[in-house]
Amino acid sequence: MKIDKVQVEQKLNATSINNILVVGVGLIGGSILKSLIANNFRGCLYGIDLNEDVTRQAHARGLIQNADNNLRIIEEETLVILSVPVLSLEEAINLVKENFSLQKIVITDTLSSKSKLLKFLESSPELSKRFVLSHPIAGSEKSGLDNSTSDLFKDKLVIISPRNVNLKEDLEKIQNFWEQLGSKVALLDPEKHDQIFARTSHLPHVIAYALMSFLVKDLGKNAFSYSGGSLENYTRIASSDPVMWRDIMISNKNEVLAAINGFKSNLENISDLIESEDPQTIQEFLDFVKDTRDTLMIKEDFL
Amino acid sequence: MKIDKVQVEQKLNATSINNILVVGVGLIGGSILKSLIANNFRGCLYGIDLNEDVTRQAHARGLIQNADNNLRIIEEETLVILSVPVLSLEEAINLVKENFSLQKIVITDTLSSKSKLLKFLESSPELSKRFVLSHPIAGSEKSGLDNSTSDLFKDKLVIISPRNVNLKEDLEKIQNFWEQLGSKVALLDPEKHDQIFARTSHLPHVIAYALMSFLVKDLGKNAFSYSGGSLENYTRIASSDPVMWRDIMISNKNEVLAAINGFKSNLENISDLIESEDPQTIQEFLDFVKDTRDTLMIKEDFL
Repeated sequence: MKIDKVQVEQKLNATSINNILVVGVGLIGGSILKSLIANNFRGCLYGIDLNEDVTRQAHARGLIQNADNNLRIIEEETLVILSVPVLSLEEAINLVKENFSLQKIVITDTLSSKSKLLKFLESSPELSKRFVLSHPIAGSEKSGLDNSTSDLFKDKLVIISPRNVNLKEDLEKIQNFWEQLGSKVALLDPEKHDQIFARTSHLPHVIAYALMSFLVKDLGKNAFSYSGGSLENYTRIASSDPVMWRDIMISNKNEVLAAINGFKSNLENISDLIESEDPQTIQEFLDFVKDTRDTLMIKEDFL
Repeated sequence: MKIDKVQVEQKLNATSINNILVVGVGLIGGSILKSLIANNFRGCLYGIDLNEDVTRQAHARGLIQNADNNLRIIEEETLVILSVPVLSLEEAINLVKENFSLQKIVITDTLSSKSKLLKFLESSPELSKRFVLSHPIAGSEKSGLDNSTSDLFKDKLVIISPRNVNLKEDLEKIQNFWEQLGSKVALLDPEKHDQIFARTSHLPHVIAYALMSFLVKDLGKNAFSYSGGSLENYTRIASSDPVMWRDIMISNKNEVLAAINGFKSNLENISDLIESEDPQTIQEFLDFVKDTRDTLMIKEDFL
């Protein structure tokens, strides 16, 4: 999916969004601001970070209008995007509340796990009704504002998880927003989201951390000495932001633990197969895995 | 490490190697032949494959002089390279024996695990003394002659595992051979080789197979629906050649099982950490893994 730059610019400025506030100006928040600027967004851009030094840096780099976390109250409708680690959510929302009239915002997030957010919204009905859940499937093991880029969301998938309370126009507004940054939007129930991402994203991260931790204990400084590149690539996500991943593991605990257990049982099956030394059964298993993966990869082109 | 093409050509033709026979003309064997041709090797190239159709294809594509597996006896010294799956080793060596006088060959392999080969060489002292163990750390999840390329070994690492019986000149010959295909050679004791590669290569493959098998059972055709690329990349090696990996798992059984167990115990540690929901301990662990990996990645530049 390719979107023409002029088209993006026109679409973006044709929406009713004139003010955007990014809360958490790290890799994701910084990249949102840079993407908007690269697409000639003509409204006002604001940003606040729980570390006020980061807010000042973002201002110094010309990404946001405000110089620090002391924002004037914005009277017009504002799109607020929360891009903080899951467990900093309440702190981030409190920071927003100090600066905005909640009637005038439409709000979204970028979180990789939704259960904590859903619980929080249950206790905040006023915030809940204009909160649209988003999860851009874009990122890097290199975190922070310094690593943000203007094309992080281009041709990437963004999951929007609609809830009953959502207004149709808010859902459309958020979908438009991501599409205008070059992303493709897919809809997915929030509980299903946490279940699937525990398996397809959180589990691979847990595996990379476990593998790296094992290799360091077992091989020490020789872990990468003879690998020639593949292992570096395979363990890359073990260099991801520790706070972000700590928060995901804790906030999606039940699904992540279920995923680890399911994976472990498949790992034990392979151990048993190897223990048996039975060439035919082992090959049948490996053939099955390869064939299924190759078939899924072809079908997956629908996106 | 960059090697000039003319330099490679000169070096390659300056060695005493005039005849090269590749046994097993798949991804590795085919790539060796293509690399030699691309580097203007002026000697004779022969190839045989356990599947004689593959031998005929290699001949039809101009990679080898012989048209099928019926080679005339070559009287001059020949470098034989075994590039077959581990458990086809004996069958491949028997095929060589039918065509060559063993006094006149220097022989090497490309195997990812050495223990079965070491055992075989114990029972074949004549073959043993001119057998130099090689393992090029190069490959692809796409196997077979069709996927072979002339630059597969360029800037890649090749492990040579010297044994007491090896002649110094044979070791030098094999080292020269790989260097002339653009590879960098490192020496490593064969037992140590199997121990390290069980952890840094065989284990990641086992993990990829277990993960893919779990995802297929748990998510079915939705396994890749919401992943956006990372999961495809992370499970890529689960599409590797089933026969090659079956053979590695069986032939390096003890070390692979030990690696799986060590990894599993680290995985269980993470489960316990998540179960505890203790933010500080979890973050300390993730910080430790990230810091160690990042430090090792910097130091690893020595290669």
